[in-house]
Amino acid sequence: MFMGTMSVDDKNHLTIGGCDTVALAHRYGTPLYVLDEHFLRQKARTYRTIFNDLIPGSKVLYAGKALLNSAVCRIMAEEGLGLDVVSGGELYTALTADFPREQIYFHGNNKSSAELKMALERGIGRIVVDNIWELKTLGELAARRGVNVSILIRLTPGVEPNTHSYVRTGQFDSKFGLPINADTTMDAIRQAVDMPGIDLKGFHCHIGSQIMELDAYQKTVRLMIEFLARLKRGLGLTVEELDLGGGLGITYLPDEKSPSLLDYAQAISSALTTSCQKHRLAMPQIAVEPGRSIVGEAGITLYTIGAVKEVPGVRKYVAVDGGMADNPRVAMYGAKYTGCLANRVLDDAEELVTIAGKCCESGDILIRDISLPTVRTGDILAVYATGAYNYSMASNYNRLPRPAMVLVWQGKSDIIVERETYDDLVRLDRIPQRLTEAKAAVVKG
Amino acid sequence: MFMGTMSVDDKNHLTIGGCDTVALAHRYGTPLYVLDEHFLRQKARTYRTIFNDLIPGSKVLYAGKALLNSAVCRIMAEEGLGLDVVSGGELYTALTADFPREQIYFHGNNKSSAELKMALERGIGRIVVDNIWELKTLGELAARRGVNVSILIRLTPGVEPNTHSYVRTGQFDSKFGLPINADTTMDAIRQAVDMPGIDLKGFHCHIGSQIMELDAYQKTVRLMIEFLARLKRGLGLTVEELDLGGGLGITYLPDEKSPSLLDYAQAISSALTTSCQKHRLAMPQIAVEPGRSIVGEAGITLYTIGAVKEVPGVRKYVAVDGGMADNPRVAMYGAKYTGCLANRVLDDAEELVTIAGKCCESGDILIRDISLPTVRTGDILAVYATGAYNYSMASNYNRLPRPAMVLVWQGKSDIIVERETYDDLVRLDRIPQRLTEAKAAVVKG
Repeated sequence: MFMGTMSVDDKNHLTIGGCDTVALAHRYGTPLYVLDEHFLRQKARTYRTIFNDLIPGSKVLYAGKALLNSAVCRIMAEEGLGLDVVSGGELYTALTADFPREQIYFHGNNKSSAELKMALERGIGRIVVDNIWELKTLGELAARRGVNVSILIRLTPGVEPNTHSYVRTGQFDSKFGLPINADTTMDAIRQAVDMPGIDLKGFHCHIGSQIMELDAYQKTVRLMIEFLARLKRGLGLTVEELDLGGGLGITYLPDEKSPSLLDYAQAISSALTTSCQKHRLAMPQIAVEPGRSIVGEAGITLYTIGAVKEVPGVRKYVAVDGGMADNPRVAMYGAKYTGCLANRVLDDAEELVTIAGKCCESGDILIRDISLPTVRTGDILAVYATGAYNYSMASNYNRLPRPAMVLVWQGKSDIIVERETYDDLVRLDRIPQRLTEAKAAVVKG
Repeated sequence: MFMGTMSVDDKNHLTIGGCDTVALAHRYGTPLYVLDEHFLRQKARTYRTIFNDLIPGSKVLYAGKALLNSAVCRIMAEEGLGLDVVSGGELYTALTADFPREQIYFHGNNKSSAELKMALERGIGRIVVDNIWELKTLGELAARRGVNVSILIRLTPGVEPNTHSYVRTGQFDSKFGLPINADTTMDAIRQAVDMPGIDLKGFHCHIGSQIMELDAYQKTVRLMIEFLARLKRGLGLTVEELDLGGGLGITYLPDEKSPSLLDYAQAISSALTTSCQKHRLAMPQIAVEPGRSIVGEAGITLYTIGAVKEVPGVRKYVAVDGGMADNPRVAMYGAKYTGCLANRVLDDAEELVTIAGKCCESGDILIRDISLPTVRTGDILAVYATGAYNYSMASNYNRLPRPAMVLVWQGKSDIIVERETYDDLVRLDRIPQRLTEAKAAVVKG
């Protein structure tokens, strides 16, 4: 199941971006995040092209929460995408990488005053207001600074797609947004319209993540357009922009099938056309916010095999030098991954093994039951489709340093995130004076 | 449900270690990990005292994976505990804090050669060998360096306590250890005994974490002593040490009841005495490895309330400025927490709310349905019993900087982990030259 530029060379090694993954593992160490630049750019470009073809004037914003660092910001900017950020830290990263400010949208259910101030000071494109408290806070900040701020308001359409409950966000019982059907929502919109310094450009919704059903998107479009029509009738208000969020699913396993970008864009486009005609509305300017479906399949992780252990009559455990610290998705969501032995790609599968991580807990299993050639200590395991929510969710659990990330392209590899060192782990540790003194006393005594 | 030194002052504020938590929140910012030094020391001391009273010569090793940083190492050393580390990073932290090397035990299912080398070079107390591959690697390393290394071998006793499957580790189908009942295990022990440079001191087992049933511990003791007897009969081998691991559960909610340390120690002690008598074995030197039950209840986390949102007819969401990034246990294990409004502790509960975190995903809920006084933006929420597996599992998800940790004691507070800054988030980011050039071209063009 090769993705992007993945291939196999004459040494039977997995290659990606024209680079031998075994050489990458030796050069940069493992665990190692590898990002396929060509594939990443291609996905970004395809999104932009398809959406602009089918829905002229539409915007594609990369959802940084999937994987954000300075180099990825730069690539997305070069590809002409906007950026969806969800925290001051993501915004800071984007600004550090000189991401065009007007193309940054700021999301989140609980932005702090400091974050909102930062967004106002830097003059970013849109603030996606989640709730009434935020609307008021933002209004006050804008008034105090004497500036205008362009906002979208986040709505929950009441759509519940078939995905993990943790990443389902369109239902009314949500910490996000205002329910599309509530009177209080209409009140909030009225307030926004009347508020000096606030320029209500439109609405945003996001029904969740890793969604495979295009129906859910079409239903969302119908509900949102119907809402815009109700708004026009009720408040006489016409807005220009509709941001439909992201969440398109990707393929993690060979037997899965995710919708193509074209099918996805067509589903949205046709639902929009039909709904706008039905309600006699002009087509709003559309934005979509893909994250995982741009970066997920463009990343792989390389591990070195350590201990190989047969529990007689039970299972063969193969342990790698990473695990839940660099990829918490298996433990967190029950996510499933596949991969290959990067140094013996085309060898016949000979055994069913379980890939265990290095963390001291049983939940740290990366892949349960994968068919591989007979695995030996020192083999390199490549796990596929780790581009999204691996690096971004990584921890120092068990005080494991977080992996490096390399960007590969046409046979070249460049570090875009340095590997953490042991020194990094204690860099922010402080020992109060009195503990030092107590120790000195103990030593003396 | 106050724990440790928690109390309420005349301003109706929560105090811990004699410090006003509201003042701590304002001084150090939120989210803030707060560690109750007196309670922490008391737990450590109680463990040591009780075990030494009931089982003379026994050792208590603090399991660093629950929460490890330089200051905590120092405190555990002062209290005379040993240390259970599970990675080079934990070992490095202990060495940085001058932890007595002979009191360090090195665990883990997949220690790398580099980690084993580091352990040998630094001359730590014991290496807890997990599997045959590790045994061989260690033997070779010891031979090459011409040193002796004292080891324990990890066994799985086949006990399955009632806890979350992720933290159940005593079953045979485990990535950890060698099955107590397998012939291959006997072979491995024979190899260890014959191996020059390897000094087999005894055995280790660990049945899991957050365990409330003392029966499971007694069963484990019986199985392990029976195994030692079999070993004596079969191989004529008598070992001196038996390390029973840790895992004692703690109280997260008011209606939970965890066993007292005394009950736990008595359960182990009585099972040991009975089993050793039955099998006519001398009592081995016992070690236990508590982590959570020492540090879990000694930590709280302070958050500031931001957005408060009523979803009409559904639920009231109260959002805090942290969440799954600083406490992934709720999303990861379905863990339940409680807490209070730290600035209005004794006010009557007036409403049932859900505490949502700041991360852009629905799984980021800290507490579902907690009764609190009417919550207002700016209130300080204290979440209890966050000492274990919060800081240690924290991530930068959504590029949120990780919180600071303060140690409180007799009205004094000291930073023991600095808060991460936005600069820290991009510190290891690199932008390859060619992306810089491309950008320059775009700007020029």
